[in-house]
Amino acid sequence: MAGPHGSTAPETCLRAGSFVPGADGSGFSLANLPYGVAAAKDGGTHLVVAIGGQALDLHVLAGTGLLDDLKFDPAIWQDSSLNGLLRYSPEDHAALRARLQFLLSRENEETRAPVEAALLEREGLDLLCPLAPGDFVDFYSSYHHAARSMKAIRPDAELHPNWTHMPVGYHSRTGTICASGQEIIRPHGQSFAKGAPRFTPSRALDFEAEIGFVMCGQTRQGTRIAASDFATHVFGLVLLNDWSARDFQGWESTPLGPFLAKSFATQVGAWIVPLAALDGARRRNRSQEDALSYLCHDEAFSYALDMEVALRSAAMRDSGIDAQTIARMDFAEMYWDGAQQLAHLTANGASTRPGDLYGSGTVSGPNEDGCGCLLEATKGGKDVIALPDGTARGWLQDGDEVIIGATAKGADGARLSFGTLTGRVAPAV
Amino acid sequence: MAGPHGSTAPETCLRAGSFVPGADGSGFSLANLPYGVAAAKDGGTHLVVAIGGQALDLHVLAGTGLLDDLKFDPAIWQDSSLNGLLRYSPEDHAALRARLQFLLSRENEETRAPVEAALLEREGLDLLCPLAPGDFVDFYSSYHHAARSMKAIRPDAELHPNWTHMPVGYHSRTGTICASGQEIIRPHGQSFAKGAPRFTPSRALDFEAEIGFVMCGQTRQGTRIAASDFATHVFGLVLLNDWSARDFQGWESTPLGPFLAKSFATQVGAWIVPLAALDGARRRNRSQEDALSYLCHDEAFSYALDMEVALRSAAMRDSGIDAQTIARMDFAEMYWDGAQQLAHLTANGASTRPGDLYGSGTVSGPNEDGCGCLLEATKGGKDVIALPDGTARGWLQDGDEVIIGATAKGADGARLSFGTLTGRVAPAV
Repeated sequence: MAGPHGSTAPETCLRAGSFVPGADGSGFSLANLPYGVAAAKDGGTHLVVAIGGQALDLHVLAGTGLLDDLKFDPAIWQDSSLNGLLRYSPEDHAALRARLQFLLSRENEETRAPVEAALLEREGLDLLCPLAPGDFVDFYSSYHHAARSMKAIRPDAELHPNWTHMPVGYHSRTGTICASGQEIIRPHGQSFAKGAPRFTPSRALDFEAEIGFVMCGQTRQGTRIAASDFATHVFGLVLLNDWSARDFQGWESTPLGPFLAKSFATQVGAWIVPLAALDGARRRNRSQEDALSYLCHDEAFSYALDMEVALRSAAMRDSGIDAQTIARMDFAEMYWDGAQQLAHLTANGASTRPGDLYGSGTVSGPNEDGCGCLLEATKGGKDVIALPDGTARGWLQDGDEVIIGATAKGADGARLSFGTLTGRVAPAV
Repeated sequence: MAGPHGSTAPETCLRAGSFVPGADGSGFSLANLPYGVAAAKDGGTHLVVAIGGQALDLHVLAGTGLLDDLKFDPAIWQDSSLNGLLRYSPEDHAALRARLQFLLSRENEETRAPVEAALLEREGLDLLCPLAPGDFVDFYSSYHHAARSMKAIRPDAELHPNWTHMPVGYHSRTGTICASGQEIIRPHGQSFAKGAPRFTPSRALDFEAEIGFVMCGQTRQGTRIAASDFATHVFGLVLLNDWSARDFQGWESTPLGPFLAKSFATQVGAWIVPLAALDGARRRNRSQEDALSYLCHDEAFSYALDMEVALRSAAMRDSGIDAQTIARMDFAEMYWDGAQQLAHLTANGASTRPGDLYGSGTVSGPNEDGCGCLLEATKGGKDVIALPDGTARGWLQDGDEVIIGATAKGADGARLSFGTLTGRVAPAV
């Protein structure tokens, strides 16, 4: 029976399941409990946690006093991002997670009424971009993506010699990180064709299916984070779409890297899945002969996430045709893992802040249907993908919707869900 | 005679000069009035404006009621950065500037006592980093820098074909933007030598003397800013040192650009000089045959700033030897100006936020003594610079101090000052 709040062991709560109808065995069971931010009826924003088809409003819950003995400043439940929550320690996050599992479990009847009063239907809820990162770094750490992208650009091209020695990455724009569901306006930019530069809407618009790492805690300038300390500095994972204009990228990237080809929009999923929910998905990374010692660790910091990308044209939507799955990948196939990326990102003493985000880079697998972007899948726009509406895609067309999803094995044996990340291409303005 | 607050024309105030001793004819006359942020005795932070050898504390001044009829939320005077002030419109900024010129002018005796009570000695004042940018973009827009840097890396190298068609740039890290006077810890990182990568403290540490553009106002995703709208979106200019590790940069930069070579530290000056103070320094940019129409404008948006870089070793400091000037440049020599950079930065519809920062790129001139970084000045570390302490520099050594300064013609005919931006190299940790 339930003791004082949160005193029942999380394992007992998990075994008992949740009183929320439909939660047990679903992608949003007690074993998941991802965090998001929703527009509230009071005109503000409230932090929420997904459970079954519902969302637990943490501001309303905190108002009942059921979180009072935890360390959190009550103002954070009304933040417009998770940054306030992310400032707390991994111990505080663990205490909150244990409390939420307890409050939502079937084990505990005492507090059910006030908890139920804090539940909202997820359907129709306006979920906002949950992140406001101070810095956003994007990596390039799938071997299959890197190798196939090079070949798509130039058939005789080889991976750069640095690639097997470091997780190559770059900084991108934080101000254009946006929510799932937001329209992606086709960007203008410079490209080079027929011997001259031109300024037009992109003619080679692409997506990149990635996983983002959301950071907690703060380090000072001059501090390096060891790869083995990954779980102390990373709070959770999120779906990420690094929208890309390949025609701009090809012309602008030498020698300073991608700039406007990426900075018009980066989408993140509505739900941040805490690392704590992903223990069952942890894998050891392959051994990397070429990694220098600061990139080595013995931990299982790769994550077996089943990822899927689907595409739906405007015509398909109008005719009621479902989105067509165009790619399936396992995130554990990445060459460099998130711990190695973090160690590299801070190898020069770069400080980090709560809410900082870094992306895995396009997730691609070894098989032909494992291409995390069109650059690979269509070999640079040439081998087009046929859609059920009778059209074909080398690159994205206006009205196309890109839908990225991921699931992982949860502690209750069911597949936990990252939700879906959806972006629709709007015409250039 | 003075009418109601701020009703005397700014020209009259400028002609009359300031009652602050030593301000007239100095680099910090009424014609300058740059903004900064200082640590306050109350343990907080206050916005300040430099005038002569003093700084006007805007929080204390606001407490006297002398800014009450202006639009500003009084909380912004205690911000830890200028971001709060930067959210206001150019008209609001102009009204504040006119008010400060009036209050500090010799014309106006009525309010002198409360204004004097808000003045602090600048000597000994703890000036903080005045900026907390949401995004930081750095450009590469000096032809002389680009051409000489390429040759320093490979004698037969030529400028990339995109260079004359667009202001090439990249995003860098905002979390490591830091104040003048802060020690720069020599970063660790990967470089490639003798056929193998290695992880060591940088052996090719360099500075880059730049000018930063500080943005005000906000644009939405999908909005392009026209080059001719530069002055509506840029509040002012600041000294900037984009510290660089050339050994890391050479190894990591293909294909995604500089990353750890730059992200360990970027310093900005303590004083943001408003564009309004720089009207006398405005010049027309050279015509650029290769610029596409979105990069063209007819305005005088180049700024004639006399820039200087000086170097002082620990031994020179210990022996009381002055810093040695190693470079002199005119900022008006830049190929792409700040208006073109802004038009390019937003060409893809990237949104901007108040406080965003973009850097000009290393400022270099045509003459041999006009090299804005050591990569150029020493041709990649080979043609060493002799220092008066008997040592020589290919790259920076621990204890070296880099001092960047700039002046411009002010509206009162005197040279207005950007102050100096100082950084000292500390040993790797």
